Amino acid sequence: MSTFLKNNYIGSILLDFPVQPRFCDEASADDLSETIAKILETKFGPFLKLFSGSVQPAKPTLGWITLLSGEKGVTAVIRTFPTRSVVTVTVDYDLKIYEGTPPVTFNDISDLEAELAKAFQSFKKTSPIPQIKRALDFDTYFTTSDSRLLEYDVQEMVFDARSEFQHVQIARSINYGNVLILDGLVNLAEADLAYTEAIMKRGEVDYTGKDVLILGGGDGALLYELRKENAKSITMIEIDEMVMSACKVHLRLACGDTLDNYKHENYEIIVGDCIPFMVKCKEEGKLFDHVFGDLTDIPISTNPIGEIWNFFRTTLQLSFSILKEGGTYFTHANGVTAEENLKMFESTIKDTLMGFPVELTQSTAFVPSFKEKWVFYEVKRAIAGNNGPQE
Amino acid sequence: MSTFLKNNYIGSILLDFPVQPRFCDEASADDLSETIAKILETKFGPFLKLFSGSVQPAKPTLGWITLLSGEKGVTAVIRTFPTRSVVTVTVDYDLKIYEGTPPVTFNDISDLEAELAKAFQSFKKTSPIPQIKRALDFDTYFTTSDSRLLEYDVQEMVFDARSEFQHVQIARSINYGNVLILDGLVNLAEADLAYTEAIMKRGEVDYTGKDVLILGGGDGALLYELRKENAKSITMIEIDEMVMSACKVHLRLACGDTLDNYKHENYEIIVGDCIPFMVKCKEEGKLFDHVFGDLTDIPISTNPIGEIWNFFRTTLQLSFSILKEGGTYFTHANGVTAEENLKMFESTIKDTLMGFPVELTQSTAFVPSFKEKWVFYEVKRAIAGNNGPQE
Repeated sequence: MSTFLKNNYIGSILLDFPVQPRFCDEASADDLSETIAKILETKFGPFLKLFSGSVQPAKPTLGWITLLSGEKGVTAVIRTFPTRSVVTVTVDYDLKIYEGTPPVTFNDISDLEAELAKAFQSFKKTSPIPQIKRALDFDTYFTTSDSRLLEYDVQEMVFDARSEFQHVQIARSINYGNVLILDGLVNLAEADLAYTEAIMKRGEVDYTGKDVLILGGGDGALLYELRKENAKSITMIEIDEMVMSACKVHLRLACGDTLDNYKHENYEIIVGDCIPFMVKCKEEGKLFDHVFGDLTDIPISTNPIGEIWNFFRTTLQLSFSILKEGGTYFTHANGVTAEENLKMFESTIKDTLMGFPVELTQSTAFVPSFKEKWVFYEVKRAIAGNNGPQE
Repeated sequence: MSTFLKNNYIGSILLDFPVQPRFCDEASADDLSETIAKILETKFGPFLKLFSGSVQPAKPTLGWITLLSGEKGVTAVIRTFPTRSVVTVTVDYDLKIYEGTPPVTFNDISDLEAELAKAFQSFKKTSPIPQIKRALDFDTYFTTSDSRLLEYDVQEMVFDARSEFQHVQIARSINYGNVLILDGLVNLAEADLAYTEAIMKRGEVDYTGKDVLILGGGDGALLYELRKENAKSITMIEIDEMVMSACKVHLRLACGDTLDNYKHENYEIIVGDCIPFMVKCKEEGKLFDHVFGDLTDIPISTNPIGEIWNFFRTTLQLSFSILKEGGTYFTHANGVTAEENLKMFESTIKDTLMGFPVELTQSTAFVPSFKEKWVFYEVKRAIAGNNGPQE
């Protein structure tokens, strides 16, 4: 058993199974709950009925609910859903009272569902769900871009603190190495070289002799990989020093020695806000060949409005104002399943850059720690002469 | 919203938050549930109290439980866990009664938890869990090798039937292409070339002019990739024709045209049991350069006992009896997190092959659709002369 499973939690076991419609009738509610209780008792010991009645006294057709309570404080809720002829059973227990040994394994859950299905002459339609571990001391559940649930093999949190800007966590996992988590979202793992190579289009873009600007990028991975590409200069501007000091220690496989010192011969890390920095570059006529928008993820929303979208628009427009003709802006976007969001992303880019002749390219890469395929954009500031002036 | 989310389900919303110990007292149970009900009402409408009392009448120290019922048959269970000073709230609803529109989004769940934490002057320790979709018409939750929960972007089941041997499903997903699922376990997706290349050690093994045997491999991917390697002959023996006929149509990106015809000039597919087939090869003195054990996964168990482990031992021993000296047996094992199981795997291989001089090599590869790093074994039948006779 991994360290992770030894961790204390409240376990919720969710069982569901289809039944013949007659079992959802009010009349058979008691029979049903008694049969279910008998099956549950094989794993949890005897139960006592605390409550049984229709879900809505006014509308008994909405279903029946039974509340059972057992030894060691285990509780079970049995619920019928007449519209779908489905019964759900939810069992909750406190691992501490079970002295750290869960009363059931995943195989037991599977067996229980099979027993229940058999008792009600139904066939089990979907796979069992492993128990949900609630009230954990640290995060192990994270989500995809479309809010699907993923349970990670977090062994421990090696860093956990709140900076002025965000909640910064680094989790140790066997599958992905250490994983940087910002405000509850998986940001980058040591196993995610694929992410960095996708955003920088390694092998497709020649950085030799170029001036490069990274907005954000506090994990240091992009800077570390770009350093290998013979650029003339790389400037990185990151607002959150805590991210860098945590990654320097705990995300070493991704950032190498990049974050050990901020000032170097051909690259520099500036701690600060990228907006005033770009405004200053613009005023001073400082131009870059490539700008990376390696900033906060934009959460999925139905419209491109709100603070983060505005921030995206502002940084994109400023980036273009300090980008040489023929230069490129690179950024990450979202998961491939977030189709509507990606369309919004593209139209926001086009609308924001109305005054510039641009070429927009989308690419995808499977990012191990995200457990999904991610979309990246390359926005090239086309050479006006080639496209005709658009301003 | 994807097709997937439009699917009908019973939604379970799981909230949990730490509280000051005093809120877990019996005396404050009613205040607590009333405060929580008020917060839940902002999203679900008014609630009625169906039950409130201590979890165990005999042991009130085990916690308090309140059952609420609302409009549209939504129910909420509020539970205190005094040992951990934690409160859990579980809300269940029937999507059909909500006419297909879930009453809350993932952001709402996050907001609710924040409100609850604020009301009880607690701070939220872990990230919110997206709602669990129960009683779905098709599987979307699958597990890792160590029974962690993963929610897939299954758009629809393009194939779902039970063969004489197993439950055969093929799910369509955006992230992984089509995914073959056998008895509820993710087997191979169209995006999993990494799996096939890892088991065959592409680029490291020269198959030119070799005689190759595949045990299992019904998805056709291994055969399809091996066909590109100039082997002299490839024989594949798969017991379940249904797997092959389903993959031929729906797993085309993985198997190409391999399963369209079973008999070819330099490769052949035999439908049947691999054990009698290998016994016959042994009797006839037919030897192979490479044998692939691409058979059923061995589930994690505490001891290498039971039918599947026996099957593994038998096929391994038979494979070695028809393997040329210097030849290799390749197989997949388990996820990297299943450390004890992998040790069992290795010692079982060594024990089973006691009579043969063998060289055992482990390698790993991240398999996209498994969402984890998988372990593969290469077991070389060493040339006796080089190692000294061991028989």
